[in-house]
Amino acid sequence: MTKKVIVIGCGAAGGTAAQFAKKTEREVEVVILEKGKFAQYSKCALPYLISGKVENVIEFSEKWFEKAGIDIFLRTEVVKIDSGKKFVYVKGSKEGKMGYDSLVIATGAKACIPKIEGIEANGGLKEGIFTLRNMEDALAIRSYMENCEKALIVGAGLVGLELAEALKSKGIDVTVVEMFPYILPSFLDPDMSMYLLEKIKDQVEILTNCKLEKVEKEKRFRSHIRINGRKETILSDMIVLCTGIEPETSIAREAGCKIGEKRGIVVNSRCETSVKDIYAAGDCTEYLDMVTGKPVVTGLGSTAVRQGMVAGINSVGGLTEIGEGFLQTRTAKIFGIEIAGVGPIAKLINRAIYGKYRGKTLPQYYPGGEDIMVKVAMNNEKEILGMQAIGEGAGLRANMVATAMANKMKADVFAGMETAYAPPVAPVFDPVSIAFKVALRRHGR
Amino acid sequence: MTKKVIVIGCGAAGGTAAQFAKKTEREVEVVILEKGKFAQYSKCALPYLISGKVENVIEFSEKWFEKAGIDIFLRTEVVKIDSGKKFVYVKGSKEGKMGYDSLVIATGAKACIPKIEGIEANGGLKEGIFTLRNMEDALAIRSYMENCEKALIVGAGLVGLELAEALKSKGIDVTVVEMFPYILPSFLDPDMSMYLLEKIKDQVEILTNCKLEKVEKEKRFRSHIRINGRKETILSDMIVLCTGIEPETSIAREAGCKIGEKRGIVVNSRCETSVKDIYAAGDCTEYLDMVTGKPVVTGLGSTAVRQGMVAGINSVGGLTEIGEGFLQTRTAKIFGIEIAGVGPIAKLINRAIYGKYRGKTLPQYYPGGEDIMVKVAMNNEKEILGMQAIGEGAGLRANMVATAMANKMKADVFAGMETAYAPPVAPVFDPVSIAFKVALRRHGR
Repeated sequence: MTKKVIVIGCGAAGGTAAQFAKKTEREVEVVILEKGKFAQYSKCALPYLISGKVENVIEFSEKWFEKAGIDIFLRTEVVKIDSGKKFVYVKGSKEGKMGYDSLVIATGAKACIPKIEGIEANGGLKEGIFTLRNMEDALAIRSYMENCEKALIVGAGLVGLELAEALKSKGIDVTVVEMFPYILPSFLDPDMSMYLLEKIKDQVEILTNCKLEKVEKEKRFRSHIRINGRKETILSDMIVLCTGIEPETSIAREAGCKIGEKRGIVVNSRCETSVKDIYAAGDCTEYLDMVTGKPVVTGLGSTAVRQGMVAGINSVGGLTEIGEGFLQTRTAKIFGIEIAGVGPIAKLINRAIYGKYRGKTLPQYYPGGEDIMVKVAMNNEKEILGMQAIGEGAGLRANMVATAMANKMKADVFAGMETAYAPPVAPVFDPVSIAFKVALRRHGR
Repeated sequence: MTKKVIVIGCGAAGGTAAQFAKKTEREVEVVILEKGKFAQYSKCALPYLISGKVENVIEFSEKWFEKAGIDIFLRTEVVKIDSGKKFVYVKGSKEGKMGYDSLVIATGAKACIPKIEGIEANGGLKEGIFTLRNMEDALAIRSYMENCEKALIVGAGLVGLELAEALKSKGIDVTVVEMFPYILPSFLDPDMSMYLLEKIKDQVEILTNCKLEKVEKEKRFRSHIRINGRKETILSDMIVLCTGIEPETSIAREAGCKIGEKRGIVVNSRCETSVKDIYAAGDCTEYLDMVTGKPVVTGLGSTAVRQGMVAGINSVGGLTEIGEGFLQTRTAKIFGIEIAGVGPIAKLINRAIYGKYRGKTLPQYYPGGEDIMVKVAMNNEKEILGMQAIGEGAGLRANMVATAMANKMKADVFAGMETAYAPPVAPVFDPVSIAFKVALRRHGR
């Protein structure tokens, strides 16, 4: 009898898991059950779908999966897992129960809805108030914004800022309100965040230290905010809540899968959950951060895909691992400025030694070099704990530091290493190397 | 009595050695003796001085060194070293002998003059025939080219191609002749070179498999070439010989320093020569390639600076090392196309497994991604031997692979590592990671 793998969810983790299960064992029956209307698409690209920069974010279509020999059922929700008898119960375009040998849970995450007076109606959000998590959200925003002059975005995280840029590019006036004193609180340290804020502040209104307390809907929305203790109101035609995500774990929890302190499904390096023959991958899971050794929900497409590969291969009897922890290598472009990081933010690390360097991407004497700001962290043993950068090539520089961290390279070896140099391409010492030299000079003081 | 360090040569290696000697031991007397007219400047920037893209290539001026407490004598040539009595004999703006406690030889390299009939006159090159090695050469070319319509460049290495681009940008018609069947023979493997040649061939005439046999000077130069066995002639107003460099070692050799198989001064990881208290650094030296373990003259500014640091620190009693060998991390921009590499070219490696991947710098669905071609090499134990890339971000990607090689990261760990992903910045898997995956799939076949 052929073995059967069921994958719940067709996001980056689920779609990848299905592909790798099929690639690894051609004879295994692989089935994807996805409650949404779309096959695998890039969630990270949704702001660019809204701006029209990208017209198609589908990475692997329904047809693609079918051609690959994978059965895919869209609009099909798994409502219950019987992990004892190894069945899932579905409703939607398909109803009833389906047996499995291995199950991969890749249910992703859902948008957090903050507790704000006046945003809800009939068990959902009021018309004109949105979250931005999936394709359906993006299409709804794209349609609604046609008649909007002004948007209020709640939360200056990655999604909030990418959306702000998208809406601005469509001629919509935007205000972003952020509770924290700085932007991108889970991506950058406060000092790096402030540097970025200074660079983009003329392009979009961002109110930090600002709490949205109440929303009234008249002809437009009237939002009552408290900023630095002072009360103000903002009028807007739409509101988008970009206040983070939380893992979607309800069916996993009911099936007995252990849920961790970060509210994600606990998985090990093989993407196994606490329940036999059930794997999980992507935003619904929590796994260890390599530096802190503590659980983290990364919310990153890159880790989702890598876990998907591991879960898919192991679900058909392969044996592979994700590594001892996540590096959280990450990048983004915010109002034209590239930012990147690897390793945890400062408040999650104890006793780090930091090095900061602001320089140019080209030698001093060569025209056209751009500003780059780099911050690195190491510990007293010169183990590299992380890096953040703002400027051209930040993403590739984060990859360089990730390469060092993944292989436990020490900071002094990194700082001394030969980097490529040519006047029109790079300076003699890369700004990241210099930032480590700064940290090393502070070492042992 | 204060110790005294003499540094011969004020290029990247010599200038850096002097700086680091002084930084390390404030009380030591540091003297630079430089036979040319200029203090430390970027040799790599000379093509851009010719094009006018850069107006000043001086990195550290005579004044700068004086302020740093370093005595610098320009137009001062060391003609002999007495390593027994520890004196150097100088002529030029200063004449006589000077004693030293430590000596750093950083005499650089000189342009190779190929044996071609008709290029020499009066013990030098005919008027209108140049090499491009130092500032004096660059200024001479810059002045002479004013009255030129057509230039012939001999050698399609880095300097030849950078110069070709510079002259073209000034409206001068250029033909480059290259003996090898491909360009950049010591930078790229033949297949990568051919890929680059295809991309730039509409911008400049490059004749490969082409030997310059004889030059006649009439009103213009008439160059007799043999291309694919066929004889032709090329008329031009100037000729620049860009046929490589060789280490400048005459005084070192006379002082008893061991000269190696690559004709450079042999140094160890501490930049010590075979003679007590004499150090050497930069283009005049040969040191080991990290991958082959064999001696190499890199001709790179990046290694010169790093050796300069080591020689300078050790010359005043410090103790530091350059590492077990050079990675030769390198980059350049040729007619607007970024190229880079790390590790030796293919013909110097035995039994490598290669992976090649041609992709885009952004995800498929996102507009504006550029072509990038990557080639990687590993051995049967999955040790990384090198990488070459052509396209945007090639240089930073070479740094990433250098980071891996410097710390002995295996190819499979590299390929599985989290790289930064965001639609406007980078795809989910960096093209370098994919190239390693290709190599790994071929592994063990």
